[in-house]
Amino acid sequence: MTPAITPTVPERASTQGKKQHLLDLQEWSAEEVWALFETTDVMAQVMTRTIKKVPALQGFTVGTLFFENSTRTRLSFERAARAQSADVISFATGGSSMSKGESLKDTLRTIDALKADLYVVRHQAAGVPYQLTRWTDAAIVNAGDGRRAHPTQALLDTYTFRECSPGFDGFEGKKLTIVGDIAHSRVARSNLRLWTKLGAQVTLCGPSTLLPHELEQFPGVTRCFRLEEAVEGAHAVMALRLQLERMQKGLLPSLAEYQARYRLTPEVMALADAQALVMHPGPMNRDVEIDGELADSERSVVERQVANGVPVRMAVLYTLLVGRQ
Amino acid sequence: MTPAITPTVPERASTQGKKQHLLDLQEWSAEEVWALFETTDVMAQVMTRTIKKVPALQGFTVGTLFFENSTRTRLSFERAARAQSADVISFATGGSSMSKGESLKDTLRTIDALKADLYVVRHQAAGVPYQLTRWTDAAIVNAGDGRRAHPTQALLDTYTFRECSPGFDGFEGKKLTIVGDIAHSRVARSNLRLWTKLGAQVTLCGPSTLLPHELEQFPGVTRCFRLEEAVEGAHAVMALRLQLERMQKGLLPSLAEYQARYRLTPEVMALADAQALVMHPGPMNRDVEIDGELADSERSVVERQVANGVPVRMAVLYTLLVGRQ
Amino acid sequence: MTPAITPTVPERASTQGKKQHLLDLQEWSAEEVWALFETTDVMAQVMTRTIKKVPALQGFTVGTLFFENSTRTRLSFERAARAQSADVISFATGGSSMSKGESLKDTLRTIDALKADLYVVRHQAAGVPYQLTRWTDAAIVNAGDGRRAHPTQALLDTYTFRECSPGFDGFEGKKLTIVGDIAHSRVARSNLRLWTKLGAQVTLCGPSTLLPHELEQFPGVTRCFRLEEAVEGAHAVMALRLQLERMQKGLLPSLAEYQARYRLTPEVMALADAQALVMHPGPMNRDVEIDGELADSERSVVERQVANGVPVRMAVLYTLLVGRQ
Repeated sequence: MTPAITPTVPERASTQGKKQHLLDLQEWSAEEVWALFETTDVMAQVMTRTIKKVPALQGFTVGTLFFENSTRTRLSFERAARAQSADVISFATGGSSMSKGESLKDTLRTIDALKADLYVVRHQAAGVPYQLTRWTDAAIVNAGDGRRAHPTQALLDTYTFRECSPGFDGFEGKKLTIVGDIAHSRVARSNLRLWTKLGAQVTLCGPSTLLPHELEQFPGVTRCFRLEEAVEGAHAVMALRLQLERMQKGLLPSLAEYQARYRLTPEVMALADAQALVMHPGPMNRDVEIDGELADSERSVVERQVANGVPVRMAVLYTLLVGRQ
Repeated sequence: MTPAITPTVPERASTQGKKQHLLDLQEWSAEEVWALFETTDVMAQVMTRTIKKVPALQGFTVGTLFFENSTRTRLSFERAARAQSADVISFATGGSSMSKGESLKDTLRTIDALKADLYVVRHQAAGVPYQLTRWTDAAIVNAGDGRRAHPTQALLDTYTFRECSPGFDGFEGKKLTIVGDIAHSRVARSNLRLWTKLGAQVTLCGPSTLLPHELEQFPGVTRCFRLEEAVEGAHAVMALRLQLERMQKGLLPSLAEYQARYRLTPEVMALADAQALVMHPGPMNRDVEIDGELADSERSVVERQVANGVPVRMAVLYTLLVGRQ
Repeated sequence: MTPAITPTVPERASTQGKKQHLLDLQEWSAEEVWALFETTDVMAQVMTRTIKKVPALQGFTVGTLFFENSTRTRLSFERAARAQSADVISFATGGSSMSKGESLKDTLRTIDALKADLYVVRHQAAGVPYQLTRWTDAAIVNAGDGRRAHPTQALLDTYTFRECSPGFDGFEGKKLTIVGDIAHSRVARSNLRLWTKLGAQVTLCGPSTLLPHELEQFPGVTRCFRLEEAVEGAHAVMALRLQLERMQKGLLPSLAEYQARYRLTPEVMALADAQALVMHPGPMNRDVEIDGELADSERSVVERQVANGVPVRMAVLYTLLVGRQ
């Protein structure tokens, strides 16, 4: 007896083998980003239904390759896959052979024998998602590589601004400010690349030890050491998580001094545009980098950022696997 | 090209947004418990088929949130979900941001962006499942909170008594005895609440350090320090797992003394009703709190308790998600 | 309201309850192995399609029970199950009750309440998969037990030889050589049992501390301490991973000495048959037991071994669950 050889769903066109990836946002045109947001609108609508599941990716498999741990980002991608009826393979390096001295290439080739159609990759070293594109026919989505890029976070931040900014009419002429540990933040880097591409002015603010010179080379980017100046007239202000282990490395003054100078408060937000949004990529240290009440205020879109994670990632998976034909 | 927007299964009525939960059993009426057992009968029948899967919860997603580790309880719920064609999101706190100082509310709000329809929650602190009901529209099932409650264990113990007690005619007038570390046992607490609601007399037995005064306040509950007296005429005797780490805290006499006075043996069971059942919620320390041969004897329904875990949890998920309309 | 009791797929014949297992290969006839390879051919074709999923095992559940950690073997089985639309339950012992002193039988009985149709078992102790067959009605697949057996690895190695050996006409008269730490290798043991059953001559090569006497009792097996002699005229040479922790136990000479005498190189492979294949079960220590360039050369079928893992395991699951009627 031979097994049933009819596939679960009919064969159909896909983008397979066309090497379409989301590595960072400089490779995507503004038009592609806007098209992705329209797909996201559809996905967001799906997630408000009683039955939050569509067959769009039935028969496909998404592999999550997290060489650096991040439960919530991984689960967000996995939910985005399953809500479209894709299968999920979850690979975390805890007990795997990477530690046995195997090369990254050999590891990826072994994993790739599982024949996922798309891999979501997080790695502590910048550039790894780019390398992987050379060793597999599957699509690659960068879920964070070193300090380099975290493009789906930037997409969901940007989608949230588009959704929540009153009377939104594009990014031209908007002042968008990021406050905190810019130096170690892949979220800041992906956002400034995307926001300047879309026409915004980006202001980066923090103590000089956490504010690298080279980012000022970017067109449309300004460095600034005083929070009041950075916030003045801004249309959105994003506070970054303060990783307290930085302090031990001498990169930070005392915590009290940091809080006094850089914590986002209702008072300093009074200097921003009257309809400015407060953002944070999470997880928050309440009352460290952001005032707890401000985080819960009407200005805050932190909960919308969180809520938009799954729809944006659904749109990314959909676009790479079947959408861009 | 816009994605397929037809849902996987047709939209249908559900209990969504009605905030129906299983937190503990005092909130459920005896009628609701009996109805749940009838649904469990159907599920138990499904699990005897060659194809142990029904489409009842297709399109729904169950999230398991285990802040305290328990592989077997988690897998039991996950199987109960998948056997009804629901999707599963599994969240364990090992590598998550809880340890980074994020508040429980912010953590739950982030997880809830995954839009599960029901969360199964275990937490070391009593009351957490109650708190979570305020922060999500999803249904909550308590899978164990501190020493407080473990309602699905109590339901499966009770369902097993209903199934296995010869000539079962209800709980009125039955004497049900629990032996061991009552003080630290959420299983004991949930069972005594359910059994007294259904009309049984409950006897709690153990050394005084493990047998709290306040439980005697419950109508229908008796404390007892002598095993022989506690077992006499009982219709079921449940031995609890002895957690040996309690000894180190000075709550227990020597292990040998505990075994001599409180181990459940065939000899002491001879004092019980002629058709009395022997129960244990597992995992067992054979020959510590229960005689190994007794655990394997005809009187023992330990294997039935284990076997009923999935059908009872299938019925709980079904009832909360689509059954109580 | 009673739940939908129609199963997801129609009831159908299955091998359930017939206790068919893959424990090791001496229990399978050569004819059964060849039939399995024909099913593997079909599965390999499925994995080249755009939609790599068939409904063959819809409604069945495969449980993976890894008492010893192996992410890649576990994921290979899980993908093989999901590609045939089976559900997967994944049990790893990290946080489970095994460490709480529960017996193996009680643990298995508890897991078996999840009612998987087939369990894939890896355990550090030889014989455990055999024991489990006595405690469950489900099929058991041995995914590695101690140093004893790893039959799916042997099947995929053998399938790869059948696929890649130029002008393949069977195993009769073939010389197949395994080099390295034979003593600790379940892969070597399963392969020599399968290869000799199919008619090949097997040569085992390594330092005497890693080359047990008793294996020479096997008909068709030769021990050999010189690599040149072992490779001469061979039709395939498989290098085994060198586990460096063996050195610390005094079983090995210095690493340099091992490499000088037993590393597989292009030079030594020149002594083999002109069309000989180079094999390695992975993960490789490049330039320890195998020359890195040789591993990437045309002679090497290491990538085919990796690629055949999922199709072979698909065929095993299919054969045990529905194929052998």
